[in-house]
Amino acid sequence: MGLKDIGEFGFISRISPQCLIRRDGVYKAIGDDSAAFWAAQGELTLLTTDLLVEGVHFYPGVTSGFNLGQKALAVNLSDIAAMGGTAREAFVSLGIPERYSLAYLDDLYRGMQHLAREFSVNILGGDTTGSRQDLIINIALTGSVSENEILCRDRAIPGDLICSTGCLGDSRAGLHLILKSIPRDTPELDKLFQAHVLPRPCLREGRFLAAAGATAAIDVSDGLSSDLSHLLASSGTGARIKAGQLPISAELESFCARFGFDPVEFALAGGEDYTLLFTVRPDEADRLADGYQEEFGSVFRILGEMTDTGRLELVTASESIVPLEPGGWNHFQQDGAS
Amino acid sequence: MGLKDIGEFGFISRISPQCLIRRDGVYKAIGDDSAAFWAAQGELTLLTTDLLVEGVHFYPGVTSGFNLGQKALAVNLSDIAAMGGTAREAFVSLGIPERYSLAYLDDLYRGMQHLAREFSVNILGGDTTGSRQDLIINIALTGSVSENEILCRDRAIPGDLICSTGCLGDSRAGLHLILKSIPRDTPELDKLFQAHVLPRPCLREGRFLAAAGATAAIDVSDGLSSDLSHLLASSGTGARIKAGQLPISAELESFCARFGFDPVEFALAGGEDYTLLFTVRPDEADRLADGYQEEFGSVFRILGEMTDTGRLELVTASESIVPLEPGGWNHFQQDGAS
Repeated sequence: MGLKDIGEFGFISRISPQCLIRRDGVYKAIGDDSAAFWAAQGELTLLTTDLLVEGVHFYPGVTSGFNLGQKALAVNLSDIAAMGGTAREAFVSLGIPERYSLAYLDDLYRGMQHLAREFSVNILGGDTTGSRQDLIINIALTGSVSENEILCRDRAIPGDLICSTGCLGDSRAGLHLILKSIPRDTPELDKLFQAHVLPRPCLREGRFLAAAGATAAIDVSDGLSSDLSHLLASSGTGARIKAGQLPISAELESFCARFGFDPVEFALAGGEDYTLLFTVRPDEADRLADGYQEEFGSVFRILGEMTDTGRLELVTASESIVPLEPGGWNHFQQDGAS
Repeated sequence: MGLKDIGEFGFISRISPQCLIRRDGVYKAIGDDSAAFWAAQGELTLLTTDLLVEGVHFYPGVTSGFNLGQKALAVNLSDIAAMGGTAREAFVSLGIPERYSLAYLDDLYRGMQHLAREFSVNILGGDTTGSRQDLIINIALTGSVSENEILCRDRAIPGDLICSTGCLGDSRAGLHLILKSIPRDTPELDKLFQAHVLPRPCLREGRFLAAAGATAAIDVSDGLSSDLSHLLASSGTGARIKAGQLPISAELESFCARFGFDPVEFALAGGEDYTLLFTVRPDEADRLADGYQEEFGSVFRILGEMTDTGRLELVTASESIVPLEPGGWNHFQQDGAS
């Protein structure tokens, strides 16, 4: 059974009951020309949107509807996390080719709703329509944050330490497994695959860092070198990263050893990790690290520091300083395959 | 020259300078993980989103980038209009196949910015990515309206008069010209074509009607019979429309006479007119009509009235009452061609 059997409005009736997760502030959910809601009082409204297109961002043959639904929402949640915000209302646009089964679409919604429940996010509206060839998923997501806690890209200053909430490069290794149809025959390879298909949005980490006084943040979607270059362009600073301090997982080390790659390359240029890259004043770092460990039971990693050179630089394993080019994923200029 | 020559970030730098139309309330525009803005104080936030897909909603061979950009924003503005709201911040996601020229994309943005300026709407963010085959445009648009003026679908009561701000069926006739490659060799045919490719969002009309006390509203996107059926389902009422009172333009009459169609059919089932269908208490109708004429120099049309039958009915030219089936455009169940 497909969408043409029940129609757009039949589909909307089918998915709507599970979309309202949190009632506070909601005035009109799905079912009118627009949703209507009260923005969080005294706070800034945040809004982000991400478009995922079949064959460009995902491959339905390898990704279940449930995982795809989660990822589509996760990448938006990650943008709200990078502002230090709380996520609130999601709006889901789907363009659906005829060959997609209702079962796959139900599964896609279950994935979104699963993650929405975890972060108290409502799905308050959207648009459902046909598409000739590719499945299309666009999500617009609102959030809120107070003006004195918002994390922006333009507030890092020279001397600030550059940190990451998690490991880098795992997602790119997972993408490699998918693109090359390499079987996930060990727990390590499966973990890399999961890092690509089910990234965890760092909303709690972002809220903590915003409240604790981190100076700037961005999420790692295009790759460390690219995303860091946005941060330094916005802040008008330079940055120096130490190769020896890159957070590289044991799984990525093992993958690179097996398939002949350089893990530093993956950590620098691999995209879609959705960790938070953030900066802290050096004299605040210990306090933040202690609080972070207490809150999350894990440590964040310090990768380097902001400089006043205007340049992005890498300190190599042999202690030489080389320019670092933004080399993350660019959907137009290079292929996803490594 | 195409997108791959300048990349996603080159494109964003290119279009950004013209995107900030109105500075008040804007905290972060394009250039961070999310936009940040102050919602209108004491008002509800509205949010709507529409997805347009090449080959389903538009045909680039016949629509210029400028017109397509305007229409993509117009259909969202129309949803805010139907809530009685003021439009505020737009977020544009584009999925772009390689064959599209930068000139076409520039033109698309110029079209959006043209309409955005007219209605003081900012483009505060979005997402730009690749697409394998079809051009994809998703816009999410915020608005605001006070709680005591918001126009919802569920507040019509039996006895309310059903009205339309403009003519119905013109857009569907324009679509027919496009689908059948019929030359627009008269000013009448050209007007029908324009009604399809450049619908006017009724934002000022919606604001007026909300403030003046209309009871409910919906915009005509799927077609009168479909959209009215949503209104009566939400309100828990019936409705009776008079065929003799349908607002049919002289251009549509002339088109139907020439090509052998029934103009009543077009007015009942043709979609994408983006007029507002609204209801008023009968004892308020004269006051509203006078105020409307004074404000806009034109009249709205009364098509029939809400009933307590729960049914959607049509009074035919011969004064018999027949059931009216929702017969508007359904992207999954029927083809766009008439």
